Amino acid sequence: MRRSKNRSIKESPLFWPVHWKGDVLSVLDETLIPRRLNYIKVHTTAEAVKVIRDMKTRAFGQFLVVLNTFLLEINRHKGSEQNLVKKLEKTARALNNSRPTFPFAEVTSIVVGWARKAADDQLNVRESLIKNINGYLQGIRFRRLERVKKIASLIKNRDSILTHCNVSGELAMAARICQEEGKDIHFFATETRPYFQGSKLTAWELGRMGASVTLIADNAVASVMADGLVNKVIVGSDRSCANGDFANKIGTYPIAVLAKEFGIPFYVLTQPSNTIPRGEDIPIEIRQEKELLTFNGRATLPFKARGFYPGFDVVPHEFITESLPIDVR
Amino acid sequence: MRRSKNRSIKESPLFWPVHWKGDVLSVLDETLIPRRLNYIKVHTTAEAVKVIRDMKTRAFGQFLVVLNTFLLEINRHKGSEQNLVKKLEKTARALNNSRPTFPFAEVTSIVVGWARKAADDQLNVRESLIKNINGYLQGIRFRRLERVKKIASLIKNRDSILTHCNVSGELAMAARICQEEGKDIHFFATETRPYFQGSKLTAWELGRMGASVTLIADNAVASVMADGLVNKVIVGSDRSCANGDFANKIGTYPIAVLAKEFGIPFYVLTQPSNTIPRGEDIPIEIRQEKELLTFNGRATLPFKARGFYPGFDVVPHEFITESLPIDVR
Repeated sequence: MRRSKNRSIKESPLFWPVHWKGDVLSVLDETLIPRRLNYIKVHTTAEAVKVIRDMKTRAFGQFLVVLNTFLLEINRHKGSEQNLVKKLEKTARALNNSRPTFPFAEVTSIVVGWARKAADDQLNVRESLIKNINGYLQGIRFRRLERVKKIASLIKNRDSILTHCNVSGELAMAARICQEEGKDIHFFATETRPYFQGSKLTAWELGRMGASVTLIADNAVASVMADGLVNKVIVGSDRSCANGDFANKIGTYPIAVLAKEFGIPFYVLTQPSNTIPRGEDIPIEIRQEKELLTFNGRATLPFKARGFYPGFDVVPHEFITESLPIDVR
Repeated sequence: MRRSKNRSIKESPLFWPVHWKGDVLSVLDETLIPRRLNYIKVHTTAEAVKVIRDMKTRAFGQFLVVLNTFLLEINRHKGSEQNLVKKLEKTARALNNSRPTFPFAEVTSIVVGWARKAADDQLNVRESLIKNINGYLQGIRFRRLERVKKIASLIKNRDSILTHCNVSGELAMAARICQEEGKDIHFFATETRPYFQGSKLTAWELGRMGASVTLIADNAVASVMADGLVNKVIVGSDRSCANGDFANKIGTYPIAVLAKEFGIPFYVLTQPSNTIPRGEDIPIEIRQEKELLTFNGRATLPFKARGFYPGFDVVPHEFITESLPIDVR
């Protein structure tokens, strides 16, 4: 039974985790999933920076927060057009400094560029920006839905797919399409220590979409590959380089090395970029050790231990079988 | 400052986790470490099987439990010499069936062989066995202390050593020797999900010995290797094959593959064996999924998830730089 081309794709909350409620931004609190689907109200740039820094939102959610924070500041702005440009430049700087690894500046510089150009061209900066940002968001939304279909077409009947961390709705939605097409597929999700995004987000959203998913410890990847239990890897990425290297949640690099060792194709959802030449130039965020040494807010060990928690690792491009890019520039 | 050859090595409780208290066996409850150093009283073979199956003891501790359980049954035996042989054969079968991956039969068959031979030779089975088992234990103890010194000599000044799960005291004791020799060394210990033996046992005992140790998530191994933060890997093993392949706690195989990828020497403490030809012939224990899906006894997820927890993986011999064997046969 083939799925109709025009039928809408069932959406996962993680696919588009930022919404407007009147003139306030609502950001899905991913740290409370799967216990609660709770949205945090964001009224200011400072609050936007906080939801990013506290990892309440992550990956694609950060992109949406950034663009919508500009809309927030535009809506709140009372002064002159020239002051609005200055305000948006300040907003951009604050967002750029929120976390090191995600390429915030690539997105904020686009908006600031639009603002400056509109001011130079003596257009209505506010109206021009609202139109541009909303058009940008709609374009990204369209291309992400197209990528969901591409992922679904990549997945064949009887495939068993390993994934890591969380691919912000796209993989779960592709799984749904596969299911509607009658494909018999299975997923292995790594837990993704220390935040368990694989358990809390990926297993949750795949299950919600009706997909069959099994959780494994991060350290069981070689075992399931050696036993022939997976035949594809699909992961997301937080940042890409000009040469194709990419950064993603810590634990992606070992999976790439193992996929090569076991001859398993390795697919990655990327946002191409030329601002950073190679992987070694990506700044890697080192998170606080307490995030590794606590569980549900409580210390896991009764003695003073030291921990090291790099938030991301960098996969050299030669490990990638195929990139599924969305150019957000 | 060189350490005197005759000076005794400070022992870790995990080095020899089984003791006698009168005529009762005391087995260190490794699941309570680091919170408490508690010993479980074992009076019977059934209780011995239970401490093994519940993973109260593991790795080398299992070996000690097995040998001492025979002493327990010999001490308790009231009947004839011939009945004692039958009783010990029954003890051997119960121990062999406790868990699949550790080679219990290789150890129990030695003891049963001694019992049968003593009976055939019309010796005093009881006295002969007590002497043989105690001699066997003393020999193993001596060779393990020798291996501790060998590990210490392998570790050079300024080394940074990655380890996984727990090496039953030997690595921590080697670290102590290195420290006394004035070597400046560091350890990275993986958490070792889902039981956190790396956090709870390894970081604890290395710290207790005064060594410098940093915990990382299992998925951060590629990252610390790529960043040049480790220059040696030292792990233990639960079972070895005739061709040199070995099984160890799940997560060892990916570390071996990554060590090769990054050109880092990979050392393993083994117990050589010829009873199994190759790694693919090792029976791998699949533990209950609840051990993956709970943390400190509580479910980690509010929805019904499926988990897959192979307790061990198998490292092909070509990944080993050097084996440090103790022949226990």
